[in-house]
Amino acid sequence: MNRKVILAIADGLGDRPHPLLGNKTPLEYAETPNLDRLASMGITGMMDLISPGIPVGTDMGHLILFGYQPHHYPGRGPIEALGIGMDVQPGDIVLRCNFSTVDENGIVIDRRAGRIREGTNEIADAINGLEFDGVKCYFKPATEHRAVLILRGIGLSDKISDSDPKAPNDGSPYHEIRPLDSSEESKRTASILNLFLQQAHVILSNHPVNAERIRHGKLPANFVLTRGAGQMVHLDPITDQLHMKGSCIAGESTVLGVAQMTGFKSISDSSMTANMDTNIELKAKLAIEEIAKNDMVLVHLKAPDLKGHDNEPFEKAKAIELFDQMVGIISQGIPENVYLALAADHSTPCEVGEHTGDPVPILIYGPSIRRDRTLQYNEMDCAYGGLGRLSGNEFVRTLHGLMGRVEKQGN
Amino acid sequence: MNRKVILAIADGLGDRPHPLLGNKTPLEYAETPNLDRLASMGITGMMDLISPGIPVGTDMGHLILFGYQPHHYPGRGPIEALGIGMDVQPGDIVLRCNFSTVDENGIVIDRRAGRIREGTNEIADAINGLEFDGVKCYFKPATEHRAVLILRGIGLSDKISDSDPKAPNDGSPYHEIRPLDSSEESKRTASILNLFLQQAHVILSNHPVNAERIRHGKLPANFVLTRGAGQMVHLDPITDQLHMKGSCIAGESTVLGVAQMTGFKSISDSSMTANMDTNIELKAKLAIEEIAKNDMVLVHLKAPDLKGHDNEPFEKAKAIELFDQMVGIISQGIPENVYLALAADHSTPCEVGEHTGDPVPILIYGPSIRRDRTLQYNEMDCAYGGLGRLSGNEFVRTLHGLMGRVEKQGN
Repeated sequence: MNRKVILAIADGLGDRPHPLLGNKTPLEYAETPNLDRLASMGITGMMDLISPGIPVGTDMGHLILFGYQPHHYPGRGPIEALGIGMDVQPGDIVLRCNFSTVDENGIVIDRRAGRIREGTNEIADAINGLEFDGVKCYFKPATEHRAVLILRGIGLSDKISDSDPKAPNDGSPYHEIRPLDSSEESKRTASILNLFLQQAHVILSNHPVNAERIRHGKLPANFVLTRGAGQMVHLDPITDQLHMKGSCIAGESTVLGVAQMTGFKSISDSSMTANMDTNIELKAKLAIEEIAKNDMVLVHLKAPDLKGHDNEPFEKAKAIELFDQMVGIISQGIPENVYLALAADHSTPCEVGEHTGDPVPILIYGPSIRRDRTLQYNEMDCAYGGLGRLSGNEFVRTLHGLMGRVEKQGN
Repeated sequence: MNRKVILAIADGLGDRPHPLLGNKTPLEYAETPNLDRLASMGITGMMDLISPGIPVGTDMGHLILFGYQPHHYPGRGPIEALGIGMDVQPGDIVLRCNFSTVDENGIVIDRRAGRIREGTNEIADAINGLEFDGVKCYFKPATEHRAVLILRGIGLSDKISDSDPKAPNDGSPYHEIRPLDSSEESKRTASILNLFLQQAHVILSNHPVNAERIRHGKLPANFVLTRGAGQMVHLDPITDQLHMKGSCIAGESTVLGVAQMTGFKSISDSSMTANMDTNIELKAKLAIEEIAKNDMVLVHLKAPDLKGHDNEPFEKAKAIELFDQMVGIISQGIPENVYLALAADHSTPCEVGEHTGDPVPILIYGPSIRRDRTLQYNEMDCAYGGLGRLSGNEFVRTLHGLMGRVEKQGN
């Protein structure tokens, strides 16, 4: 019997009672007939991704949902690089970057170069592939003013400081890169990165895209601010470890990046945005198609998190109703041997506007599942659920166990 | 006040809803007035032997129920040897064996020598006590074609391969024993074991029991297939650690082996089978007798596990009713200072036919116990119990704590 799992993830789903919603949470307030039907037929509980009270980022939350321990986290840089389709190899130093505007004294006029959106491919190409002392510098734009830089070569370290002053355009200069420890590798990496930043500054300052921007009264993208250097580690793909095939359907590069790193196939489409206008019908259709070819499929919806960050409780409830519709379509087409599980990567309470450590509701429905007494999928009904309160690792291992893919201990 | 515990263990008890039982689990379906009465008067919960989703073997499950951590597991061989009453000493190399039939070219004709049942004591005696280069070889038969071999001497290692090809009589030859690492100990152990196997083959081939078998058209037991070498470790008896006396009443050699290793006295009887015809009245009577002389008594019933493996949900419900009757007799005779606890070593859902990581229901009844709201002993009512969801170590420590045998931390 080959049992499989579709795990539907509502990003930032968990919340707290909100006065605008009559002190209901957005999940309690939203109309979610499909989620509640699954709750009444399955088993529910609460999950702390790491441990009670600890907030996690989307990347960490998903790393755990894909089946890893928190200590496997390789840093945000490598995940972003993979998410935008860069080739990242073990040992690479990966940095998150902003195109920015600096004046002739190095003062950061705008950390986001006037939130540049057009022409980033061209200016990125102009500084991609530079080489210093045998170290290749790969540079690729991400959304809007964001980009990723990879340093590839021998004798490198991620123990280096940021060039990004991070202050909100308050007259601070960009920072020289400094080594953060006394190793030769850190000194060498800092020195190479400073050379890259200077040469990039020269190239960008003279680039036609920026000349055009200045002509139109826009800020030129003439400097690269770097932050969060991380060295790519080798992660043994969980799909190999469990001898299974997996795929991940998402519109967001962070989630797609984690998927790639963990051996899951990334599946996306331009109609899958990271917002309310995402194509939930296509996501649901692909989830059903993919589970026929794979053992585990993760399907992700970003919108609830965005509305939590924006403190828009009514909008968050609407985003949750999209999740309900997506899950409803999946549940209608799901084969008999497939479990359908629901989870979130973290809470993003509207009234906080940030990720918090509040636990999130979880649910498992499928073949011969023990059925508990919970009838609705939300933060409080699931706290009375039959699974109890699990860590992220325990929840995912429970799913792997239902698939028959956890090794027996003893005999 | 000297408080004691009788822990009644229903092997493989946990299950999942089964369509033949109207989507009840066997435990929900069975008539269990005694278990339910205890639930209504005690406190209940759920237990993951190691952690959610991880299946365990009977030996590992019991090692934990006797009070150990999973990392104390010494391997299956030492447990089997102790279970059949062999003297096992720290440092011994213990191997699980099959009597088998090989032809003149070493091809394994039958891995189980025609499932030999008679004469195994005689042929085992003929090869018991051989000695090679100062290493004594102790050999004893277990049930049917099974046996255990112990190598005792200095400079031995368990990093050696199996002679058992494990293939189902497909024309494979038996395997020479090879060292699995480059140590002198492994080389020496492999070489001695090969000498033993050759000499045993000569002795067995010429043994009257086999001559008789051949005359009756049966396959001769002329070769010993070995597997799963394990080196016996020293386990500090939990009875010594807690300054208590314990005994274990069971009909199954694995459980009796674990009991011996952990300092519990093994109590068995030929009327205690590992099946439905086991003598539950005697088990219950002995449990009452033994608790008068001991601080902790474990009493075990194998039958539910067997019926789970065989996907016989009605039979499993009947096996659970035997457990209910056994517990009922014990509860009638139990002294005032004794807690009666219920547990299982793992789930064996009928529809899976194997051990799974589903949690099992637990229950504690006895003097001044906190009473929860659960009225029935089963997989879902106990999920709402007052103990919550515990690991095996937490549950057993709770019992030791009720006995007043857990050391205070701080002052």
